[in-house]
Amino acid sequence: MGRSSVYCDLAVEANSLAIERRGTSIPGVEEDVEYIDDIFVSRIKVTTEEAAHEIGKEMGQYISVHSHDLRGNNREEQNKLSGIIGEELKQLLGWPDEPDDDEPTTFVVGLGNWRATPDALGPRVVGHLLMTRHLYREAPPELRRGVRPVCGLAPGVLGLTGIETGEIVKGIIDKIKPDQLVVIDALSAHSMDRLGATVQVSDTGIAPGSGVGGRSLSINSGTMGIPVLAIGIPTVVHGWILADETLEGFRRESRRLKGIGPLPDQVKDRIIEDVLSPFGENSILTPKGIDELIEEVSRTLGGAINIALHPDITADNLSLYLK
Amino acid sequence: MGRSSVYCDLAVEANSLAIERRGTSIPGVEEDVEYIDDIFVSRIKVTTEEAAHEIGKEMGQYISVHSHDLRGNNREEQNKLSGIIGEELKQLLGWPDEPDDDEPTTFVVGLGNWRATPDALGPRVVGHLLMTRHLYREAPPELRRGVRPVCGLAPGVLGLTGIETGEIVKGIIDKIKPDQLVVIDALSAHSMDRLGATVQVSDTGIAPGSGVGGRSLSINSGTMGIPVLAIGIPTVVHGWILADETLEGFRRESRRLKGIGPLPDQVKDRIIEDVLSPFGENSILTPKGIDELIEEVSRTLGGAINIALHPDITADNLSLYLK
Amino acid sequence: MGRSSVYCDLAVEANSLAIERRGTSIPGVEEDVEYIDDIFVSRIKVTTEEAAHEIGKEMGQYISVHSHDLRGNNREEQNKLSGIIGEELKQLLGWPDEPDDDEPTTFVVGLGNWRATPDALGPRVVGHLLMTRHLYREAPPELRRGVRPVCGLAPGVLGLTGIETGEIVKGIIDKIKPDQLVVIDALSAHSMDRLGATVQVSDTGIAPGSGVGGRSLSINSGTMGIPVLAIGIPTVVHGWILADETLEGFRRESRRLKGIGPLPDQVKDRIIEDVLSPFGENSILTPKGIDELIEEVSRTLGGAINIALHPDITADNLSLYLK
Amino acid sequence: MGRSSVYCDLAVEANSLAIERRGTSIPGVEEDVEYIDDIFVSRIKVTTEEAAHEIGKEMGQYISVHSHDLRGNNREEQNKLSGIIGEELKQLLGWPDEPDDDEPTTFVVGLGNWRATPDALGPRVVGHLLMTRHLYREAPPELRRGVRPVCGLAPGVLGLTGIETGEIVKGIIDKIKPDQLVVIDALSAHSMDRLGATVQVSDTGIAPGSGVGGRSLSINSGTMGIPVLAIGIPTVVHGWILADETLEGFRRESRRLKGIGPLPDQVKDRIIEDVLSPFGENSILTPKGIDELIEEVSRTLGGAINIALHPDITADNLSLYLK
Repeated sequence: MGRSSVYCDLAVEANSLAIERRGTSIPGVEEDVEYIDDIFVSRIKVTTEEAAHEIGKEMGQYISVHSHDLRGNNREEQNKLSGIIGEELKQLLGWPDEPDDDEPTTFVVGLGNWRATPDALGPRVVGHLLMTRHLYREAPPELRRGVRPVCGLAPGVLGLTGIETGEIVKGIIDKIKPDQLVVIDALSAHSMDRLGATVQVSDTGIAPGSGVGGRSLSINSGTMGIPVLAIGIPTVVHGWILADETLEGFRRESRRLKGIGPLPDQVKDRIIEDVLSPFGENSILTPKGIDELIEEVSRTLGGAINIALHPDITADNLSLYLK
Repeated sequence: MGRSSVYCDLAVEANSLAIERRGTSIPGVEEDVEYIDDIFVSRIKVTTEEAAHEIGKEMGQYISVHSHDLRGNNREEQNKLSGIIGEELKQLLGWPDEPDDDEPTTFVVGLGNWRATPDALGPRVVGHLLMTRHLYREAPPELRRGVRPVCGLAPGVLGLTGIETGEIVKGIIDKIKPDQLVVIDALSAHSMDRLGATVQVSDTGIAPGSGVGGRSLSINSGTMGIPVLAIGIPTVVHGWILADETLEGFRRESRRLKGIGPLPDQVKDRIIEDVLSPFGENSILTPKGIDELIEEVSRTLGGAINIALHPDITADNLSLYLK
Repeated sequence: MGRSSVYCDLAVEANSLAIERRGTSIPGVEEDVEYIDDIFVSRIKVTTEEAAHEIGKEMGQYISVHSHDLRGNNREEQNKLSGIIGEELKQLLGWPDEPDDDEPTTFVVGLGNWRATPDALGPRVVGHLLMTRHLYREAPPELRRGVRPVCGLAPGVLGLTGIETGEIVKGIIDKIKPDQLVVIDALSAHSMDRLGATVQVSDTGIAPGSGVGGRSLSINSGTMGIPVLAIGIPTVVHGWILADETLEGFRRESRRLKGIGPLPDQVKDRIIEDVLSPFGENSILTPKGIDELIEEVSRTLGGAINIALHPDITADNLSLYLK
Repeated sequence: MGRSSVYCDLAVEANSLAIERRGTSIPGVEEDVEYIDDIFVSRIKVTTEEAAHEIGKEMGQYISVHSHDLRGNNREEQNKLSGIIGEELKQLLGWPDEPDDDEPTTFVVGLGNWRATPDALGPRVVGHLLMTRHLYREAPPELRRGVRPVCGLAPGVLGLTGIETGEIVKGIIDKIKPDQLVVIDALSAHSMDRLGATVQVSDTGIAPGSGVGGRSLSINSGTMGIPVLAIGIPTVVHGWILADETLEGFRRESRRLKGIGPLPDQVKDRIIEDVLSPFGENSILTPKGIDELIEEVSRTLGGAINIALHPDITADNLSLYLK
């Protein structure tokens, strides 16, 4: 393998890499950026198949919200972030602000392995959600106002179940017929700076090879038959990226120092494979405090999803609903 | 409610209660008993609808294996028990001893709430199983010999997911099309002596109201469309039973002492409701060491299921496979 | 054993039982009661050895706060309760409202077994506390204002460690020399109504036989050498109590119905022992939703302790600090 | 920082690095190596202060056992490894094969954070040990034969407790006066190949900066007052090492290709710091399947310690004792 085969989960990174390679912006990729206070929001649309191929991301919308407060422990800043991310989710969901009598049902799936801390984001976020579907139908209309029907689970990974997660999810969708699916997964980034600091929301679903676990599944509106919103936060950097970045750093330094040229790819790959053996492409890099990082970002992301799905929950009253 | 509305999970207890009420054995109920060393095995067949109604258990077969070693911590005795229970499971499954090239796939579901120790049996047992379905198809035939394709999960309870467990299970069955379903659940008993000491296996599935949680679901071959084997171990006694047993004990004593007659049911119910308020029928009685009891019986039951499903695993080599 | 040998953790219950036995209030026991909205607060002082012997509780102060909101899931009501319990804790601690430069250090110990849901209160509460001791010494004085040095752990139970918890706690106290000890434990009640609904705070420490686990240890200012505050919430009722209450209920009914007299103690004991066998005094009764009950009350009690120990934390801003 | 400030936990690696730097073996360091089947055993003695300074490890003995079966899932091979590691532990402990009437008590401490998978080795291993100290004193002499008194706990990390682990351990030692201390910790390696594949046992204790967490404590016979055996398995490689190895690989390649010389240290450090920012020295590299790796090696190491401490437990009957 080589760097190009390390899946790039974040569209904002994939776009930057493509721009760097090409030297100009990519036709068919639109990126709007905005600062809300010191929170950086990027909204990318990939509008053509050519653009999708060039940046290595499916056609569709990708919104990323970047702030180091996400992994901090300032609850006020986190609640504010939950509100901002929640608003972006609402935009993608395209819902009316006021619920009506026939509310759409949302099914939320937390991907990943709760026994491996860096991969536990999905299960942890699901644990922070207000599940209401089973209460909703029995409640009189006046009590339903303010919440929408939500259900969800964290099915675990292939090695624990023997079943592809995509099969589990599709089976449940066919049975309970929700109106939309929200999938949460721990992602990998190409930069340490993004760990626990960037949330990506997209309407393209989950692609094979994505996520910390390198999911083998494809979960999108095509395979699932209903709209799919994918939400993720990077919690690891692949070892390959670190080694590659190191060599690139060296090359830049060396050029200044010695005037040597770029390193042939097959030489780079051989060096890196040697260093990463025996786990190779399965080596992941995390910060030491990964448990606290996961705890903090799960809470903030859980809050954002609660805000997006239930009209009664806002950034101001969020702490009355979070577990 | 009254005692009659406390669901009786164990057929062996339900049959005894009915015999006590009627004064004779129940037509349409056949019970064979056997001692294997000091392990007590009861095999009950409920063969008519009238009998099913009278003892309050569905038509079908119920096998129970009773031994205090089940909850002990003697690994050799437990492995032996795993072997005996595994053989009973094999009988009910009706499988050939030697696997053939087109092996049936088993789907195992652990019911219950892993966050409430007395209800965590199902999830814990699933954690002890060898999941092979995802490896099976890729393996060459010579490597498949000795194991059969098994998959499974513990979906959690309604309050955590917002989805009836029966819907989750049926959805996955329709999608992955296993040949049979095995459902594991923590049960309630009518006697403290049975806690962690009796395993019940039946081909009737799970009835509404059964289990520690009083499942609201019906999981059987009719609702699931494939054969269903239900396996359970009692981990609690309902508070109602304890109070009722106390009053019965008193009545027997009093009769001897004072000659007073039986207590009218409505008086008994009022007394017990008062004592159990405010949790009422939701009061459960467990031993203090419930965590160790669950740990030990989960291991033994997981061993039994591994032995039943995989020809290569036996009571003798079980410890090479258990986690 | 008999009912009198079932330890009574709550002074408010012990006092009621003693009053019932004697027919009048107990000399040497002072009880003040107060309603704060619909929250019931009882403050008991046991002032003589005779009184201590009669009600079966050590000399000292016992404050209990009773409200069903404690086990509910209304976060606003729970935060209010955290504030009220926190104020009672402050009174017993006798601390100034404003911290000074040489703040006393508090050591908090969560007793109990985190693997048995009804006994997990102590470990769960410790998980909600703001630990600051290690940061405190390095912080400049202006940053120290608003928090006090707090440290703590949940050492687990004798069966898991092979060491009496009292030995672990005393060893750490002798080494780190905190100014006071706070001990948290799951308690047993004599009435289902109190489960998850009453908090008891006392300056008498932990007596042998107390708690869900029937601790074998004595943790008080005498054995530990520093002031000890014990805090607990009942999460179980002993099976013995349930059976006894049932018989008492029957006796009251029967008297009305038949005019029969009280049951001799040895008869009662024989009946109950028979019903509870084989786990006998180790049978405990909990509500089915014990996991949610523990989760909710742990959060509220953790909040109360944070409020009591850190001047900056109040009922209003509590949700910015809780995990 | 630079590579030299990345603590080298394994003496076998530290010795190799020093030999590479010096070009000859290190005076004052003796290394014996042995193959037991395909298991590699290295026994290093650091006998002078100069040697200790040169290789960066305290004076004392370091035994490492290296086999990829350690992280595999072949239970038979793992039991065999438990036996071999157990024998090495016995050698270092210097115990007689037959217990006598006044058995020494062993206190086992599992360092690390159970909530961060790569750092959870210590707590997990403690969970596999047979704790006997509390039973031992009450047992008659004939029942004591075959087991020795063992106790232990996993106190958690500074951020969770607010107390230095060394203080907790010393406090408990002073109180319960065990005869020896065994400390278990997850280590970091300089090579991916060693993750989950090397066990190091030493009589030098824990040095500040060691372990996955970079413990700030010093736990050795000097600070604790009793003999200390430290046992660890590497579960991570520091990001710094990976980047450094990559540059070294490049240099070797480049030399062949271009003839350029070694890279100045300050240039290397600048490159690596840039790549690893913002987590810097707190970046750790693990395999993706870290949860299974930890589970497998914890079981094998727990088995080894049980074999070393209890005469009745052997590689052959180990599975009767492991949880």
